[in-house]
Amino acid sequence: MSGRNRLIYLPLGGAGEIGMNAYVYGYGKPGKERMILVDLGIAFPDMDTTPGVDVIVPDIAWLTENIDRLEAIFITHGHEDHVGGVGHLYNQLKKPVHARAFTANLARRKLTEKGQDPKNVHVAAPFPEMIEAGPFQVGFLPVSHSIPESNALVIDSPAGRILHTGDFKIDRSPVVGEPFDEALWAEAAKPGVRALVCDSTNVFSKHAGRSEAEVAPNLKPLVAGAKGMFVATTFASNVARLQSLAVAGEAAGRSICLMGRAMRRMTEAAREEGILTDFPKTVSPEEAADIPRENLMLIVTGSQGERRAASAQLSRGKYFGMELIEGDTFLFSSKTIPGNEKDVARIMNNLSEMGVDVVTDDDGLYHVSGHANRPDLEAVHKIVDPQIVIPMHGEHRHLREHAKVAEGLGRTGIVVPNGTMVDLSGNEPQVVDHIEAGRTYLDGSALVGQFDGVVRDRIRMALNGHVVVAVMVDDDNEVLEDTWVEVRGLPELVRGSAVLATMMEEHLAGQLARVDTRTANDDAKLEEVITRGVRKVAQDEIDKRPEVTVLITRLTAD
Amino acid sequence: MSGRNRLIYLPLGGAGEIGMNAYVYGYGKPGKERMILVDLGIAFPDMDTTPGVDVIVPDIAWLTENIDRLEAIFITHGHEDHVGGVGHLYNQLKKPVHARAFTANLARRKLTEKGQDPKNVHVAAPFPEMIEAGPFQVGFLPVSHSIPESNALVIDSPAGRILHTGDFKIDRSPVVGEPFDEALWAEAAKPGVRALVCDSTNVFSKHAGRSEAEVAPNLKPLVAGAKGMFVATTFASNVARLQSLAVAGEAAGRSICLMGRAMRRMTEAAREEGILTDFPKTVSPEEAADIPRENLMLIVTGSQGERRAASAQLSRGKYFGMELIEGDTFLFSSKTIPGNEKDVARIMNNLSEMGVDVVTDDDGLYHVSGHANRPDLEAVHKIVDPQIVIPMHGEHRHLREHAKVAEGLGRTGIVVPNGTMVDLSGNEPQVVDHIEAGRTYLDGSALVGQFDGVVRDRIRMALNGHVVVAVMVDDDNEVLEDTWVEVRGLPELVRGSAVLATMMEEHLAGQLARVDTRTANDDAKLEEVITRGVRKVAQDEIDKRPEVTVLITRLTAD
Repeated sequence: MSGRNRLIYLPLGGAGEIGMNAYVYGYGKPGKERMILVDLGIAFPDMDTTPGVDVIVPDIAWLTENIDRLEAIFITHGHEDHVGGVGHLYNQLKKPVHARAFTANLARRKLTEKGQDPKNVHVAAPFPEMIEAGPFQVGFLPVSHSIPESNALVIDSPAGRILHTGDFKIDRSPVVGEPFDEALWAEAAKPGVRALVCDSTNVFSKHAGRSEAEVAPNLKPLVAGAKGMFVATTFASNVARLQSLAVAGEAAGRSICLMGRAMRRMTEAAREEGILTDFPKTVSPEEAADIPRENLMLIVTGSQGERRAASAQLSRGKYFGMELIEGDTFLFSSKTIPGNEKDVARIMNNLSEMGVDVVTDDDGLYHVSGHANRPDLEAVHKIVDPQIVIPMHGEHRHLREHAKVAEGLGRTGIVVPNGTMVDLSGNEPQVVDHIEAGRTYLDGSALVGQFDGVVRDRIRMALNGHVVVAVMVDDDNEVLEDTWVEVRGLPELVRGSAVLATMMEEHLAGQLARVDTRTANDDAKLEEVITRGVRKVAQDEIDKRPEVTVLITRLTAD
Repeated sequence: MSGRNRLIYLPLGGAGEIGMNAYVYGYGKPGKERMILVDLGIAFPDMDTTPGVDVIVPDIAWLTENIDRLEAIFITHGHEDHVGGVGHLYNQLKKPVHARAFTANLARRKLTEKGQDPKNVHVAAPFPEMIEAGPFQVGFLPVSHSIPESNALVIDSPAGRILHTGDFKIDRSPVVGEPFDEALWAEAAKPGVRALVCDSTNVFSKHAGRSEAEVAPNLKPLVAGAKGMFVATTFASNVARLQSLAVAGEAAGRSICLMGRAMRRMTEAAREEGILTDFPKTVSPEEAADIPRENLMLIVTGSQGERRAASAQLSRGKYFGMELIEGDTFLFSSKTIPGNEKDVARIMNNLSEMGVDVVTDDDGLYHVSGHANRPDLEAVHKIVDPQIVIPMHGEHRHLREHAKVAEGLGRTGIVVPNGTMVDLSGNEPQVVDHIEAGRTYLDGSALVGQFDGVVRDRIRMALNGHVVVAVMVDDDNEVLEDTWVEVRGLPELVRGSAVLATMMEEHLAGQLARVDTRTANDDAKLEEVITRGVRKVAQDEIDKRPEVTVLITRLTAD
């Protein structure tokens, strides 16, 4: 067995979550497979599980341990959950990055930001052009999504062809960028496809997906009918939507002003790569200040309620000289990603307090999804007609449902969660290994492991508060009387007037006067006694169990 | 002016949020109005804004300052956001509590839990019976909702009648409890209604609401078709749903087992008050263990993903001897409240990993809302035909939209957010005062004010980490060399191997050796120097700005 070449698939991120995509393919003798990495994305932190963290990237420890076997990195498209990790992790990988022009433009900016050479990013031509990477030949097969130049990857190995869809929808009129080209997909599938590794995001959506082109006709009358300033927010990377919005604004006699860094970066990249050719002329916020509000349309970042983005800023007051007032209209040309509901609602409520009319996509008029719904997934299964379907880009429930869909259509569908290595060379796919595939946190400028305890400690302090105790032990191993206690994140006063820290100090004073020399001499033991004492007071007085840090200073005779 | 009697309305909670309902009505000379309180609910904390908090209640400081003017408390129904604060805040109010029998049963349990006399809760008969409370006469007008015995309140004062809807929907076949009785409502409205104070939760839902009776016919085939164990979760207080679920289980030859404390409390109260008369016989978890899984139905708490509730426990493994396996079915007969999406998804993914089939209400088959949708609100505006509509029970955007609906139907609609006192006696409602109406946190057993800084400090520690520094200053005002630094919620090592705390200690040692006597002598100044030093190292090394606590011990000669 150990001598046979095999084709392996190993998701390091994206299979068990929506975000942080990173998929490894390998071909060769077991343990010696030459590998490629498809996508290297980020996930976004939240207060519940990752407070204070800036960005989450896949744990690539296994990959870096086997770095000499990695040939190249292929990026399907420019969304942050696919390309966002390239900047943060490049210095650990240092392999050629291949992407289509628009995505390459974004990837280069990321390398440059991190002081890496942007020349490591190579622009790929679309399929049938193929790029060689060790035993693999890889082609970029254009597909419609919610960002220009999305691609499936055609991955050829001696053990057969894989079609890795990336993110996609079936859209034959995507406004900007390449439409779904069924003939080209059929051509790519013609030699036979061993495995379809397939986007699962919308597997629970039962109706056929809608085209981006359906949005523009609804936007026009909405913008035309608005009285005051018109503000629209959407994903900055949805360049087609930006175009539809701007065209609707222009048609209503409004000047277009883009606000938010991502908005400017995306349109800049799209212009540089020749994707945006007939975007209406825009004005700067400074110029906008002189334009009557009824002749102005702002297109802004922050559709997910991000606190520092333009939408949130505008909902709190002035932002770059712009200020919303009663009679203005604010459109969410977007869907709220699960988990962001409260942040989005906060903005809507702020706007409501200002008297701004908020328009959402409740009726499905002003937004369409970028992912294939269940009937579209089924259509693609049929076009590609693979032997195996491996669902990806989904939480476990999405993957499982998608595998059922595949089985329902008579194909082998298997759930391969992050960290599971599958051999795709035999008649049936076989799980051959499990590797550690967790998350790494970018925290400030430090990379922190998921299990390092840093985030766990933050969560505990947030839930329980933190009590800090300083004690001194003299050179006779006597604990000195004046123990000092400070509390953070706990009430200062209890029962109206008693000072919690003082109560703890008094309790400890009594307790420490009684400790024996052995305890006083042993940092760990002394810490335990103090922690227990502090927690007893907290429990009795306020029914909390705080985190406790004890600083023991041992005085030594000079 | 000061001599004229007036009728005032003052929401202390619930008008600007969904949760924590508390509405004051008063009648009398300005500043001397005799008052009643309608509802006293809680809101639920979240990690983003209230980490570690157990329960949120309205800030009733204004009410307790004017406690001698409060006549009584009226509770519309038994949901926690209406009755949940009665236990926590009773000792500050100590006024008679009036409620219908089922709600009174729940309220009594809350008083008993807090060591208060449950006899303070009085059972009210339904309208047209009226209860006198100072200048008010108050009647409980039955209405359909998602819990038995919900009521609107008919509030008569010398300045006219108010109809306070409480939570409601228009349901003429609610399975359990009183249907919406249009004739009775019309009778209550007949003398003329000055103001309709009205539920706004579903004002953005454009279709007419659906009856609870629509759910049962969908449940039956689902349960009948299930192979393994059948588990259903819903709100424990939705007794009608529990009944529909249990009946569907019984029809499919399954024994019914209720799991979760709230589930048992609610059915117990409903039985005690004669509301549940034909609920199928249930078995205990111990008895259930001996029943084949295909003959068993669990009805469990935790539809919102609460981590300690039965659903979450079952999704993590064994719970009271029950364990789910492949082929079992788990039904969410519920809607996910915004903000709970991730917690609910976590359970679904755990269940998916176990091979359990998860069924949700995506297609609207297994759940109906308990609140009136927009057409139903319009219907009630017409039935009651008030002069003024005051939207309540909603975020600002709901209140504003609901006021627009009222205006659209030709009535005065006004948004009255928490803390706004409105005089309803004149021709037009007039804002006459603003009072502080925030939130109070029940944290362990302590009540913590929203602006006390406790929660702010917790959030800061969670986002930034916490550095603790102990320094000693001798009796010559010299800072001793061995400063001790501990970090919590920050990486221990930076750049692979350097110890962050040690780097801070070294930096501080250098810095403290140079401080002058005046600084060393002044706690505030010394703390500032140390905080700045610690933050400089954190900034330089990991680009974080931690919270810092400095403990200064001053050694004095014995």
